[in-house]
Amino acid sequence: MPHPMRKRIYVVAADHGVTAEGVSAYPREVTYQMVFNFLRGGAAINVLTRHGHIDVQVVDAGVDYDFPPHDRLLSMKIVRGTANFTEGPALTREQAERSVAVGIDLARAATGDGIGLLGIGEMGIGNTTAASAITTVLTDSLPNEVTGRGTGIDDASLARKITVIERAIELNRPNKKDPLDILAKVGGAEIGVMMGLVIGAAAERLPIVADGFISTAAAALAVASCSCIRDYLFIAHLSEEPGHTALVRSINLRPLLDLGMRLGEGTGAALAMHIIEAATKLLSEMATFDEAGVSQKEP
Amino acid sequence: MPHPMRKRIYVVAADHGVTAEGVSAYPREVTYQMVFNFLRGGAAINVLTRHGHIDVQVVDAGVDYDFPPHDRLLSMKIVRGTANFTEGPALTREQAERSVAVGIDLARAATGDGIGLLGIGEMGIGNTTAASAITTVLTDSLPNEVTGRGTGIDDASLARKITVIERAIELNRPNKKDPLDILAKVGGAEIGVMMGLVIGAAAERLPIVADGFISTAAAALAVASCSCIRDYLFIAHLSEEPGHTALVRSINLRPLLDLGMRLGEGTGAALAMHIIEAATKLLSEMATFDEAGVSQKEP
Repeated sequence: MPHPMRKRIYVVAADHGVTAEGVSAYPREVTYQMVFNFLRGGAAINVLTRHGHIDVQVVDAGVDYDFPPHDRLLSMKIVRGTANFTEGPALTREQAERSVAVGIDLARAATGDGIGLLGIGEMGIGNTTAASAITTVLTDSLPNEVTGRGTGIDDASLARKITVIERAIELNRPNKKDPLDILAKVGGAEIGVMMGLVIGAAAERLPIVADGFISTAAAALAVASCSCIRDYLFIAHLSEEPGHTALVRSINLRPLLDLGMRLGEGTGAALAMHIIEAATKLLSEMATFDEAGVSQKEP
Repeated sequence: MPHPMRKRIYVVAADHGVTAEGVSAYPREVTYQMVFNFLRGGAAINVLTRHGHIDVQVVDAGVDYDFPPHDRLLSMKIVRGTANFTEGPALTREQAERSVAVGIDLARAATGDGIGLLGIGEMGIGNTTAASAITTVLTDSLPNEVTGRGTGIDDASLARKITVIERAIELNRPNKKDPLDILAKVGGAEIGVMMGLVIGAAAERLPIVADGFISTAAAALAVASCSCIRDYLFIAHLSEEPGHTALVRSINLRPLLDLGMRLGEGTGAALAMHIIEAATKLLSEMATFDEAGVSQKEP
């Protein structure tokens, strides 16, 4: 591991048709508004990546808004928001494949830029609904076991969110054995790009840090496509979202942090990267007891 | 909180007479050998403080060795190793008071140097035995509930360590209501200096991060002397030592990290400081939703 280690987080944004069902506390336009906030440097992820000396790039994977060109915004729009998955698949199979391919390309680009540690985060009003649906399928859970309050919905909205997921799975019947099918039917464009980033990072032998619940749902789809990908994957923190515990258990990885965070954007990944880099420095910089002239254990 | 925040860790070292009872896997001279390692910059705490841009100062509170002068070694020797507390108090009341006074002075010096976040760590072969004895008294536990393997002792040594603590408490009868009495009878010089650092930091309104088990034992003695001190205290990580869980529960603080660490030196404090500083930056640098033009929650 070379030092200083170059670190990058891709914050992948997209909209979700399922917001029409009233599953989020915030209106859909918050997705594009927060993208502007990322580009201006005012969001939590900007503060934490500056603090951790981490490059941050924003990826438009499917936001329902036309952004003007910006040097930190990568325009990779697959859709202008997914379709409402209570009425049919969120993405076509071809769109799902394309989103994963975009992620694989971004991982390759990171390696080309000399990045040694990659992170993923996201922004997308409605995407905890998609992540809970994916978790339901991947972990053989019931929607009410793995669905939480996202940005902070009330009891009535939570009950509606659970029903929405039940209906989506009933209607679309995602095939547990086919991660791309799950992604297309109840996923989202940012989830597909992050899934591709995790696959691509492993292919490049580049360690990658998934942030919280939605990032881990994407990473779990990648691991479901090839279990060896797990060897390159860190889970940054345990989210407050109840589905996250089931997800990390299913891929048998332990989150590095447990700070009660639930923001997304890659904020947990930014904090965890400091610890991962510290571990690599201990391996390369620390004196052995022999080198330091320290006595051996007593017999 | 001004930024960049100046951060410092005091690594406080001392020897323990109780090592004569065979309670440690390593010989006593490892304490002074590790002090030299700290001064050369080869130890884990050096790697992690360089990584976190943290100033590190080494304090000789009671090492059984005469060090040559060094610009990063603060010579504050109270004793040349404590007395064996299976035969009488580890420190006299006067030595215990003096060790706390040294810590208070060091906290004041840190404020004078513009430090905004302080940390404590330690080195002292035998000091998990002292920390377990303190924990036994402070938490009304039995020695076998709060005594662990320290640097990695075997089953026979662990049984001996527990017996040693039982004998020490039986003989010295530390007064639970008098933290200085506990410190004197079953503590150590580095524990007294760290206790003083925690008291002094609170008096200076300077936040302070206790590292792991032994640092928390010192911090718990400080909190026992005045409960409001708790408001300035962070516990960096949950140690693998079984006594640590009882200690953090008794002062009702949750460790920031839980990474299975058990090294001491302040290594957990160095990692936790990154997270604490990040939190202060979020408070000062992050745009509000209003500033960022983000829509309000839906009614």
